[in-house]
Amino acid sequence: MPHLLSTSSTLKSCFSRPFTQSTSQQHTTDYPRCFTFKTSGYKCNGLVLQQDPSSHRSCIVRAAAAVPASREAPATNPRSGSSQAAAADGLPKAQKVMVIGGDGYCGWATALHLSNKGYEVAIVDSLVRRLFDHQLGLDSLTPIASIHNRIRRWKSLTGKTIELYVGDICDFEFLEEAFRSFQPDAAVHFGEQRSAPYSMIDRSRAIFTQHNNVIGTLNVLFAIKEFQQDCHLVKLGTMGEYGTPNIDIEEGYITITHNGRTDTLPYPKQASSFYHLSKVHDSHNIAFTCKAWGIRATDLNQGVVYGVRTEETEMHEELQNRLDYDAVFGTALNRFCVQAAVGHPLTVYGKGGQTRGYLDIRDTVQCVELAIANPGRPGEFRVFNQFTEQFSVNELASLVTNAGKKVGLDVKTTSVPNPRVEAEEHYYNAKHTKLIELGLQPHLLSDSLLDSLLNFAVKYKDRVDTKQIMPSVSWKSIGSKPKTLTS
Amino acid sequence: MPHLLSTSSTLKSCFSRPFTQSTSQQHTTDYPRCFTFKTSGYKCNGLVLQQDPSSHRSCIVRAAAAVPASREAPATNPRSGSSQAAAADGLPKAQKVMVIGGDGYCGWATALHLSNKGYEVAIVDSLVRRLFDHQLGLDSLTPIASIHNRIRRWKSLTGKTIELYVGDICDFEFLEEAFRSFQPDAAVHFGEQRSAPYSMIDRSRAIFTQHNNVIGTLNVLFAIKEFQQDCHLVKLGTMGEYGTPNIDIEEGYITITHNGRTDTLPYPKQASSFYHLSKVHDSHNIAFTCKAWGIRATDLNQGVVYGVRTEETEMHEELQNRLDYDAVFGTALNRFCVQAAVGHPLTVYGKGGQTRGYLDIRDTVQCVELAIANPGRPGEFRVFNQFTEQFSVNELASLVTNAGKKVGLDVKTTSVPNPRVEAEEHYYNAKHTKLIELGLQPHLLSDSLLDSLLNFAVKYKDRVDTKQIMPSVSWKSIGSKPKTLTS
Repeated sequence: MPHLLSTSSTLKSCFSRPFTQSTSQQHTTDYPRCFTFKTSGYKCNGLVLQQDPSSHRSCIVRAAAAVPASREAPATNPRSGSSQAAAADGLPKAQKVMVIGGDGYCGWATALHLSNKGYEVAIVDSLVRRLFDHQLGLDSLTPIASIHNRIRRWKSLTGKTIELYVGDICDFEFLEEAFRSFQPDAAVHFGEQRSAPYSMIDRSRAIFTQHNNVIGTLNVLFAIKEFQQDCHLVKLGTMGEYGTPNIDIEEGYITITHNGRTDTLPYPKQASSFYHLSKVHDSHNIAFTCKAWGIRATDLNQGVVYGVRTEETEMHEELQNRLDYDAVFGTALNRFCVQAAVGHPLTVYGKGGQTRGYLDIRDTVQCVELAIANPGRPGEFRVFNQFTEQFSVNELASLVTNAGKKVGLDVKTTSVPNPRVEAEEHYYNAKHTKLIELGLQPHLLSDSLLDSLLNFAVKYKDRVDTKQIMPSVSWKSIGSKPKTLTS
Repeated sequence: MPHLLSTSSTLKSCFSRPFTQSTSQQHTTDYPRCFTFKTSGYKCNGLVLQQDPSSHRSCIVRAAAAVPASREAPATNPRSGSSQAAAADGLPKAQKVMVIGGDGYCGWATALHLSNKGYEVAIVDSLVRRLFDHQLGLDSLTPIASIHNRIRRWKSLTGKTIELYVGDICDFEFLEEAFRSFQPDAAVHFGEQRSAPYSMIDRSRAIFTQHNNVIGTLNVLFAIKEFQQDCHLVKLGTMGEYGTPNIDIEEGYITITHNGRTDTLPYPKQASSFYHLSKVHDSHNIAFTCKAWGIRATDLNQGVVYGVRTEETEMHEELQNRLDYDAVFGTALNRFCVQAAVGHPLTVYGKGGQTRGYLDIRDTVQCVELAIANPGRPGEFRVFNQFTEQFSVNELASLVTNAGKKVGLDVKTTSVPNPRVEAEEHYYNAKHTKLIELGLQPHLLSDSLLDSLLNFAVKYKDRVDTKQIMPSVSWKSIGSKPKTLTS
């Protein structure tokens, strides 16, 4: 495995807004430092931050543009390179996986899981998710370490290196450098604004969400086409792309017989937030590039993820994953467990008949690994529905209420006006067999998981800001003026 | 009808990039002038350019932000305002129509047509389409006047005023001002980058196309929600959103019976360029806002438009419409007629079995008027397929060859490698009855139209740059580096 070493790279830190800083120096220290040179109006190009293999606590910051000569050789065909091994079925087995958005909830768990399984992993992340928390006055229930400390801790515990490229994939220069430098066999793309309520706060957040997600994904597609043609794109979509049709939801495609003729076509999409819509746009863009450029991609239409622990994040407190319980980033089951822990009534939106697919975060990481280990053919656009069970919101509330009783919590439920625009009673039957066929062994929602999640929430309940629990974002009253939040 | 008068508005010209200019002065002259004040880094806010009713050749430039007090009164409900009249069916009849992209091929013809029919029209346009021509070294076959001269000429011929707002709808401040000032009852949205080949030139044009089209349309939706809730959005989509499925294409929706259950869902989309994809994204975004916000919208999935003359553009040479024949902006039939006129073989891409819907530009303007005159209900997302006949490329080539013979042209056809990724032989049967039901009286493609179009092309054949005829943009070889064009 090649290592990027520090030595004499030209250092520059690059941000998306004009700035002037005057320090230029290189360090190899116990803590990451930001190295800059004097520049004005430089377009964001990202940082590469990487561990020095000579010390598990040191790390090296260097300019993304400054690639050591050893890495500047023309990219070899990854299929013939040393990083490729043939799987049993003759298809190449991915060894180097880029996890875009690897500092987030699903991304961090996935990066560690893949690293643990022997993949060579690089995280690409702008860290903007942490900025959203600052800006909105939110915080994870669980204290989380910085990405730098996370990666150092992982190295110290396992000896495994995770490379880190800090930058914005909407900046193609940065992304190009990350691709040229790391040469991934697979790119797992979690790097999007992933909250429906966030996308519905105000016009600027709606625009940000669609721009960030759509343009970021387009850049990933161009990077694959230009620099790593065989790289398998594993893209996180959402079950929310389908909406709630009155017929069974298939996995990506549906065979339609109409006026005596038959075709298999993309399953119709009915997304219900600017966030969910951005994923629909991504799916269409990716499908086109598979056809036009021969890219191979797997769209994982994921359900609502719950849980916080995975085998790897349990290893040390500094590896702990985030757990969002607020009304913007918190998702149904996690949110309910935290509400139960602090004695807040479970907030059921509207009638509570809204039914969705759910999965344990331990299955998220398993599904992504399965997708990577079983890539599609060049030009193939696969769609897997990634969830294990369906629940209505009322069913979840009932499960949490009963689990709460067993650990001595008196859990109430309250119906709050639904801030979203969605059917509250509807048919819902979504297929999810393709990942099972690849070998997924689901962790179904159980009393023990709920107990553990509740106990986890109780452990950190003093960190809960109860002001963040009630929904504050309305689908109908979103306006064009920036919405400011006051504490 | 209120008029915006010149007097003492603060003048500023606003561009999307930082600039510094030092002239600040106001003129009322025969020719439009650009008024600026010294500024640095000012964000684009757009110009409002309007005719002074006291002189049909003078025009007034003022800052978009400086609205006369008479226009600052709170917006009245357009349904009860003087600009609204009840149609025979009891629905409000739109009187004030904003034509976004009103300087373009379809937009200009539509703006004149609506003005001629008694609608109060405002054109909103950034004029960037003219910049594309400069940058790519292209030009309309027909000489076209500036938008300012066009509008003055229209006023001098008919006495009718067309307001002009010059600015970028991706700039919400500009768009807000245009909406608050004009208070449209209907907004016809042609204001998008509309060429598939343009979107496939390089990464930056692909990104521009999706950003410009998607964000611009989102801004229009927010402007309607915030400032003109009853405004009917008439959005130009494309038949290309559907691709070429092996079943009949319906108008926007398809009723599917699947596993014993039935639902009517959005028709599956399979677009085949970044441009066509941007329209798919728009359609999904608009459908959502109709449902969530109660916006009423009509998506006109238009076929390939041909022809250049409409009743209004024929009135004077300064009203003449553009006619694109180049491989980037020229569309099939128009392009073939120009090729025939200059003795260039007709360029059939691949096998020529590609079949699409086509319509005369005189039907474009008629269809838009019909959509405006028959608005849907609030919350309704209507989709009309806007074309009148289907042809394969080979059929068009044959029609032009035969028409050429009659006017003494020896027309050859050549097959060139298909620069696109598309089926060259396929089933195609698209419904298009909804506009007919509203009263569309089609101008079907006829020998006389072809004669006229050929003669038109012959008239201007000395303006043809034959270097622009062969396709130069390839769907497969698009790259991430900016493509520069040399003359």
